Amino acid sequence: MKRWQIEPGKGLTQVEVDTPEPGHGQVRVRMKAASLNYRDHLQVSGFYPGGSSGSIVPLSDGAGEVSALGPGVDRVELGDRVTATTIGGWIDGEYDPSMRDQSFGFSLDGWLQEEVLLPETALVKLPAAISYEAAATFPCAGVTAWNAVVETGGAGPGDSVLALGTGGVSMFALQLAKLAGARAIVTSSSDAKLERVKSLGADDGINYAQRPDWHEVARELTGGRGVDVVVENAGLLDLSCRAARSGGTVALIGVLAQFGGDEAAQHCRVRDVFLAGARVIPIMMGNRRMLERMLRAYAQHGIEPVIDSTFEVDDAESAYAALGAAGHVGKLVVRA
Amino acid sequence: MKRWQIEPGKGLTQVEVDTPEPGHGQVRVRMKAASLNYRDHLQVSGFYPGGSSGSIVPLSDGAGEVSALGPGVDRVELGDRVTATTIGGWIDGEYDPSMRDQSFGFSLDGWLQEEVLLPETALVKLPAAISYEAAATFPCAGVTAWNAVVETGGAGPGDSVLALGTGGVSMFALQLAKLAGARAIVTSSSDAKLERVKSLGADDGINYAQRPDWHEVARELTGGRGVDVVVENAGLLDLSCRAARSGGTVALIGVLAQFGGDEAAQHCRVRDVFLAGARVIPIMMGNRRMLERMLRAYAQHGIEPVIDSTFEVDDAESAYAALGAAGHVGKLVVRA
Amino acid sequence: MKRWQIEPGKGLTQVEVDTPEPGHGQVRVRMKAASLNYRDHLQVSGFYPGGSSGSIVPLSDGAGEVSALGPGVDRVELGDRVTATTIGGWIDGEYDPSMRDQSFGFSLDGWLQEEVLLPETALVKLPAAISYEAAATFPCAGVTAWNAVVETGGAGPGDSVLALGTGGVSMFALQLAKLAGARAIVTSSSDAKLERVKSLGADDGINYAQRPDWHEVARELTGGRGVDVVVENAGLLDLSCRAARSGGTVALIGVLAQFGGDEAAQHCRVRDVFLAGARVIPIMMGNRRMLERMLRAYAQHGIEPVIDSTFEVDDAESAYAALGAAGHVGKLVVRA
Amino acid sequence: MKRWQIEPGKGLTQVEVDTPEPGHGQVRVRMKAASLNYRDHLQVSGFYPGGSSGSIVPLSDGAGEVSALGPGVDRVELGDRVTATTIGGWIDGEYDPSMRDQSFGFSLDGWLQEEVLLPETALVKLPAAISYEAAATFPCAGVTAWNAVVETGGAGPGDSVLALGTGGVSMFALQLAKLAGARAIVTSSSDAKLERVKSLGADDGINYAQRPDWHEVARELTGGRGVDVVVENAGLLDLSCRAARSGGTVALIGVLAQFGGDEAAQHCRVRDVFLAGARVIPIMMGNRRMLERMLRAYAQHGIEPVIDSTFEVDDAESAYAALGAAGHVGKLVVRA
Repeated sequence: MKRWQIEPGKGLTQVEVDTPEPGHGQVRVRMKAASLNYRDHLQVSGFYPGGSSGSIVPLSDGAGEVSALGPGVDRVELGDRVTATTIGGWIDGEYDPSMRDQSFGFSLDGWLQEEVLLPETALVKLPAAISYEAAATFPCAGVTAWNAVVETGGAGPGDSVLALGTGGVSMFALQLAKLAGARAIVTSSSDAKLERVKSLGADDGINYAQRPDWHEVARELTGGRGVDVVVENAGLLDLSCRAARSGGTVALIGVLAQFGGDEAAQHCRVRDVFLAGARVIPIMMGNRRMLERMLRAYAQHGIEPVIDSTFEVDDAESAYAALGAAGHVGKLVVRA
Repeated sequence: MKRWQIEPGKGLTQVEVDTPEPGHGQVRVRMKAASLNYRDHLQVSGFYPGGSSGSIVPLSDGAGEVSALGPGVDRVELGDRVTATTIGGWIDGEYDPSMRDQSFGFSLDGWLQEEVLLPETALVKLPAAISYEAAATFPCAGVTAWNAVVETGGAGPGDSVLALGTGGVSMFALQLAKLAGARAIVTSSSDAKLERVKSLGADDGINYAQRPDWHEVARELTGGRGVDVVVENAGLLDLSCRAARSGGTVALIGVLAQFGGDEAAQHCRVRDVFLAGARVIPIMMGNRRMLERMLRAYAQHGIEPVIDSTFEVDDAESAYAALGAAGHVGKLVVRA
Repeated sequence: MKRWQIEPGKGLTQVEVDTPEPGHGQVRVRMKAASLNYRDHLQVSGFYPGGSSGSIVPLSDGAGEVSALGPGVDRVELGDRVTATTIGGWIDGEYDPSMRDQSFGFSLDGWLQEEVLLPETALVKLPAAISYEAAATFPCAGVTAWNAVVETGGAGPGDSVLALGTGGVSMFALQLAKLAGARAIVTSSSDAKLERVKSLGADDGINYAQRPDWHEVARELTGGRGVDVVVENAGLLDLSCRAARSGGTVALIGVLAQFGGDEAAQHCRVRDVFLAGARVIPIMMGNRRMLERMLRAYAQHGIEPVIDSTFEVDDAESAYAALGAAGHVGKLVVRA
Repeated sequence: MKRWQIEPGKGLTQVEVDTPEPGHGQVRVRMKAASLNYRDHLQVSGFYPGGSSGSIVPLSDGAGEVSALGPGVDRVELGDRVTATTIGGWIDGEYDPSMRDQSFGFSLDGWLQEEVLLPETALVKLPAAISYEAAATFPCAGVTAWNAVVETGGAGPGDSVLALGTGGVSMFALQLAKLAGARAIVTSSSDAKLERVKSLGADDGINYAQRPDWHEVARELTGGRGVDVVVENAGLLDLSCRAARSGGTVALIGVLAQFGGDEAAQHCRVRDVFLAGARVIPIMMGNRRMLERMLRAYAQHGIEPVIDSTFEVDDAESAYAALGAAGHVGKLVVRA
């Protein structure tokens, strides 16, 4: 079978390997679709720390059909349509740093291969209404947004949600804000992208290139009260706090806080954090229960995640190129 | 000015009184609309305990225009459109039993009069999008449903909410479930009422006269998982628990638990409560912060509460008669 | 090796079997101590439903030394001192009814054998300060009390905790209330047992045989406010609610709610539940994170669980007899 | 009667004024004790923004005896021993920025006068076991620590609490950590002060002058897991985050975040906040319900707050001088 690997210093390569047999408690899944996240760009560019030191099969997010069962498996059956959490052992409750080495696509081989071995505890069955392509976008970006907006932020009817930028997490945050009855505000430096997000349901768009005081604009849109939930995806923590209401939530998404923007943007004024009075809560993606809840929500409402483009898996390099070019709105997907 | 009073043993009477002047911290409000709740039927029938021992102006829920300000008032201005909490001192946080004697329409004079004196701390300004008639339905039934579905139940996208019957609280629960992205299931003994609630947005209706196992039907509608939030408004606690999912919420609404149904229905099997694994949480209406959030949600979404009929205030007796006849779906409102 | 089994209709018998080898992800533990719970009395008496239909090795709670590792195990090492959750797959977060068939001693073989096979995910290492006998009392009764008093009840400094009776869960609830800075109130029908619980740290004892209005006595002890957390272990839900404060917690422990007391006690008046205003929350034991937190707390404070008597494992029948006689205060332990 | 005032540019002065009469809903309290907080030093030095622009009676914290009742008051009686919240209208629930202008000693006259006028809603009766001097230390520093450690941090048995420095809030955090069954770790640059805090119950002290990596030392003291609750009182947010466990709480106390330390310390690396995985939550003192709970806890346990020195009110300037000298451990109190 075909497998794509990232080797330190060598980028993405394709190899042929034997199809693996699932061990005890493992399930083999025929990959039907997988999606890319910003950290996959960092990984292939060599900037993502903490992962495997050797070669690794990338992509933490995918979906497929169960093609073989290891001994002792009883959560799924042959032919089941499934996806999986991005962190194998995180079923429910709190994130634990010891889970870091169970991360598919980084410490463990991920979805960019024809057949994937996964522990059965990581798997979630797909509702009939959810396609493979849609499901493949949920585990990292979708569940991160679900955790931020619904579980940690607790956004509900009449609340407001501010998403920074138009990347994958932001587009899920927009959709989830609307599903939860909240108002969705999105920022971008492109008026064209702002038009696009409004067509996707955003109540308001703010061009932060034209309005460097976008945090004040967001606050005014809430009648001066401040935004209930900010999905902080841009490494601009103090400005995000100033947009938030007292007692609100700034959900701190990791990748850009770690790597994006220039160094100055990586610091924040503690005074702004204090005076804003909002809770700052780091979001480490999410657990299996959250993935299950999110799939149920999308299936009930019959909506689709925002997919910018879909590539054939043999053309995975083009997907990586599009990711690096950063012109997309929503997710980039490969399918088999 | 005109005032309506309930005197023990004498029912509702109308009297003429001098228009009162607001004292320190008080506001006079010209009543524009007021609404009736089931407990108003109990009160006028002499069955509602714990209220004033003398005559009292009934109705806990209303809205109007500020017509006079007492000394020291700074939360509102003349001409402001306002409503008020049903319990004067409950601003935020937990209910405290000492608040019981601050209940408008029961321990303190309520809204069934041309001009009402209220403490400024009880008032909430109306968003422009909210009419007086709509606002008048929120303080008791609306906020009770908000507390049950949104704050205590935490219903969100993909969750399910079961409302028992088609009274005022149930119709708000239905609307709030939909606003929050959840699935709404409603029970009734009337197919005509079930048609009506479906036209109002309910995903499913269950005729409990035809299906005495309605709790099993509700559970099946959720794929066997159980309902996330049951708005228990019928004095059927053990059956409600059996409809709920493990870890879900049964929001126990008070009036019928206290007075409705026959005596057998007033007991429940503790075993059923335990085995269901759902939390049973009594709902004592709600506080001012909840009322503010709810008004914001209805204003944002531009929806109207379900009003069955509106009566002129001089015909308030007809509103009470309709309440007693129990054929309505949604709220009964009087307007001035 | 020796193993004790319960066979339907035949009670407890001892057999000799081969020492089992751990499979993938499994660990073999040499049992050093195990403890009995009231439900073990029900099981051996044939009254406990939902368990294995064939013979089963009883006891959900134990501790021992790791004696063999199956393939793929990395959470423990040979020689580690460990205990285990009572429900194998419940790591963190919410209880899920599908976990019911992972219950050691009921659906899966438990601790009453010389060597026990357990999934590595169920194991927790013992702090050095915790003995095997102490650890063996924690998984069911201890963690149930921890869940009720600390996590669900949130008891803190200045709060009050009421434990009904002097069984294992109640004695843990007493100790945890004191550790958390709360006041501990315990009921019993025996003045001698009340003296004993006071010597164990209880602030107040109530003889419910002399004071059938024990719920009123408890309320008076809190200055009329009501108890913050009631550990409802006696099938007396409505009286427990009447002892609780508005907004407090009645933690509903399962076994007696299901099987204890006479039939009348198995029903409760919904009106009392509503008017009390306390949350009623069923407690399904607890998860691995809770067990870890509890072990850390006992180790930090250097306290011992309340153990009534310790029996040699070859005399396990005497432990069962003591359990049935119901004269104990605290836990009954067997050791190897 | 005597009154002390702070006038912009003139520091503290004493004046004679008529004893005021309480208006509607107001209570006059004969001051028996009052306490100083670090922000009182800032205020008298002219650095505290947002307060009254004219002269003001300082001190937000005090206790005394009810000496006169205004019309409509029913929460207290003549002769009652009382204290008051620092923010008049904050009864329960969330802080709201509109409450800022209800702050005694800053926007409204405070406790440094012989007789104080207060709204009855701000008052809390003292348990018999609580002295005036003790009560006078609770409203700001005590309730801030209570909010941080008990309510927001949720510290319980076996958890760990890290308090930075030996000021008033830190000493309360130490006491509350111990009351709640947690381990208390305190930092200081003085070994003598560390000895003192250990004699007050601290489990561990860290000299941050000798150990600039105090956050690593704190983490090691918890076995590498990280501290559950950090009371961040030193403007060192990123180091505090690095001391905290994943999922733990960094309670961000305001005054030093706003004014203390040098400018460099006022910024933090967002990366550290994200990677730590702890929630950062600003603490705006606390509400009346928290003050009541805290008084109940201290009364139950019979412990005293840590008071460094007590001054006669006529010598209030010495108390301010001691505050500025910063050599104290615990609170500075004036009494009448």
